[in-house]
Amino acid sequence: MAEKLGIGLMSGTSCDGIDAALVRFSKNGTELLAHRFTPFPKKLMEEVVSASGPDGRSELICELNVKIGKLFGKTAVEICSKRRVSISKISFIGSHGQTIRHHPTGKNRSTLQIGEPAEIAALTGCTVVSDFRPADIAVGGQGAPLAPIAHYDLFSSGSEARIVHNLGGISNITFLKKGGKLKDVTGFDTGPANSLLDIAVRKFTDGVKSYDKGGKLSLKGEVNKSMLTYCLSHPFLNKKPPKSTGLEVFGVDYFDELYAKFKRLSEPDFLRTVAAFTAFSSVGQAFRFLDIVPPVRWIISGGGAYNTAVVLGIQNALGERGSVVSSSKLGIDKKAVEAVLMAILANRTLKGEPGNIPLVTGAKRAVVLGKITRL
Amino acid sequence: MAEKLGIGLMSGTSCDGIDAALVRFSKNGTELLAHRFTPFPKKLMEEVVSASGPDGRSELICELNVKIGKLFGKTAVEICSKRRVSISKISFIGSHGQTIRHHPTGKNRSTLQIGEPAEIAALTGCTVVSDFRPADIAVGGQGAPLAPIAHYDLFSSGSEARIVHNLGGISNITFLKKGGKLKDVTGFDTGPANSLLDIAVRKFTDGVKSYDKGGKLSLKGEVNKSMLTYCLSHPFLNKKPPKSTGLEVFGVDYFDELYAKFKRLSEPDFLRTVAAFTAFSSVGQAFRFLDIVPPVRWIISGGGAYNTAVVLGIQNALGERGSVVSSSKLGIDKKAVEAVLMAILANRTLKGEPGNIPLVTGAKRAVVLGKITRL
Repeated sequence: MAEKLGIGLMSGTSCDGIDAALVRFSKNGTELLAHRFTPFPKKLMEEVVSASGPDGRSELICELNVKIGKLFGKTAVEICSKRRVSISKISFIGSHGQTIRHHPTGKNRSTLQIGEPAEIAALTGCTVVSDFRPADIAVGGQGAPLAPIAHYDLFSSGSEARIVHNLGGISNITFLKKGGKLKDVTGFDTGPANSLLDIAVRKFTDGVKSYDKGGKLSLKGEVNKSMLTYCLSHPFLNKKPPKSTGLEVFGVDYFDELYAKFKRLSEPDFLRTVAAFTAFSSVGQAFRFLDIVPPVRWIISGGGAYNTAVVLGIQNALGERGSVVSSSKLGIDKKAVEAVLMAILANRTLKGEPGNIPLVTGAKRAVVLGKITRL
Repeated sequence: MAEKLGIGLMSGTSCDGIDAALVRFSKNGTELLAHRFTPFPKKLMEEVVSASGPDGRSELICELNVKIGKLFGKTAVEICSKRRVSISKISFIGSHGQTIRHHPTGKNRSTLQIGEPAEIAALTGCTVVSDFRPADIAVGGQGAPLAPIAHYDLFSSGSEARIVHNLGGISNITFLKKGGKLKDVTGFDTGPANSLLDIAVRKFTDGVKSYDKGGKLSLKGEVNKSMLTYCLSHPFLNKKPPKSTGLEVFGVDYFDELYAKFKRLSEPDFLRTVAAFTAFSSVGQAFRFLDIVPPVRWIISGGGAYNTAVVLGIQNALGERGSVVSSSKLGIDKKAVEAVLMAILANRTLKGEPGNIPLVTGAKRAVVLGKITRL
């Protein structure tokens, strides 16, 4: 296999900015060469949050599609210049875009990501593969999670069972059996990760902080059992996989519900309990729905992997059944995993290889994902 | 050149339904084999109109993207079964999608079309090329009009100068010099065609009629000079090309303005004057902005070409300078031209050929348009 360079671009449901990963594909496998995070300017973040609500306006969506596309393109240019790689050496860019709506089930299954790939292509001169989710939706799937196939590429092991746990706005896990093949890979969304925590922090700090850095605020509190029990009774947790979710379920509305019921708690206790909710719901569902024979290596990535309250919660929930390790320890910076996935998915698309796993998304068949833009 | 079959799918700013064209590309040129119009169900039409307003909701846009994609796919399947061509013989589908917003100028130039290509691909098994406008926007163009390059393919002539006039929701003209080459092609949007007429008819008939079939209602009236003069003073008509426009300029708001000012007119006089506005604005701008040496053959297509009041108006405005002929007389059914264009653009994209004309759209350079979806 000839060596190829690709860039993955991801902007998650936290609406905080763009992760870019510069990735080398070669016979030695998939290597992360550089990672870069470009925060959304405050006004843009507010616009994205506004557009993502059910009442988001068409006018704003049309404009943001171009604005976000330009910012994605700019980020791709910057990661190259930072690593002193000429952008002309980049074979392709994989772009997730920004999710505006995601309705994985029901009679109007649909998903909407924006971030115009033609803008990325115009700024970079690269072939762009974008918008991976709608193809899975079109063949009966939920359009998510898409991470497992790439988690398999990056983290599968012949010597131990592994869970790869991505803690973005939403939390998803992938199960990689010891010595398993692609056909053995399973995974699903487990519920909220940073989405609820970020909303709570913004509320408690009057918008001064947008997230709980390192979990410092949460660590001042203690888990409230009554609230945790209430959270863990959420019906999504009982749904059998395949399943996926989004801010429609674990966003502002759910926060408001929790806050109305538990505002008597101190703010640190509230936050610590939300962190515990992410941890216990993920570990609980893993052992309930997946055929895991402990011990398992529990690999964490995403912004939530920096939140010590969440990480302690996961280790606590796991107990003797497994040990937590950051993806960074395995060679892929924990903030970069999602962006690397986008490069891996784009590479598959350009080779004509499917990118979804029917067992994971519920799709009727495996299909090539995404749209190819080449100006 | 090996023979290839393609399908073009178009749904215009009139929001009335989908035109499909089955097209053969061979060394004999581009031939229309079949045309089919699938009206939008009434509820879908209402949803499209609602989503297209500046306050169109993200939730609805997300759902409609899938619904419209499915209907586009179904239409492609139907045109094949009608013509008894196996869909497996179709090399590609070109899909315009449904325009939701179009902002060709200003600091937030952007355009938004929906109609998920992955849904079309899933239903047909075909390679789909979609969403042609954003690439032109990304290189500084207005994303419209895109018709001229295809008008050139279909209608250029060594023996006479030709205008190709598409009367969709919006009106656009292409100028084909006698014996001219692709580099000589020019064209622009001239203003409203059916958009204003349809809004007026819906209002005057309390929604019983959605358009003025054959121009019958308009033909009962006479042109009101004062209103026509007012219409012809619209600033868009004085803008130099390249230029494009949409329902943001010539939709409900402009109708309301006209109606407030001229509601004293009888309804037929009002309609006849709107028809004359389309005719006189198009011919007037053609001779003002294009280097036409009369006589010119004025080829009309689109739904408005069925409106006798509009057609008489064009011939009247042209006078001795030219003669009007339907595209149907030249081998391409006048209702099918826009759909044929989509097949032509898709074919260019798959060959890696540019689809925009910088002189026409204002783009800095010619680029390959669209996104390729192949499940």
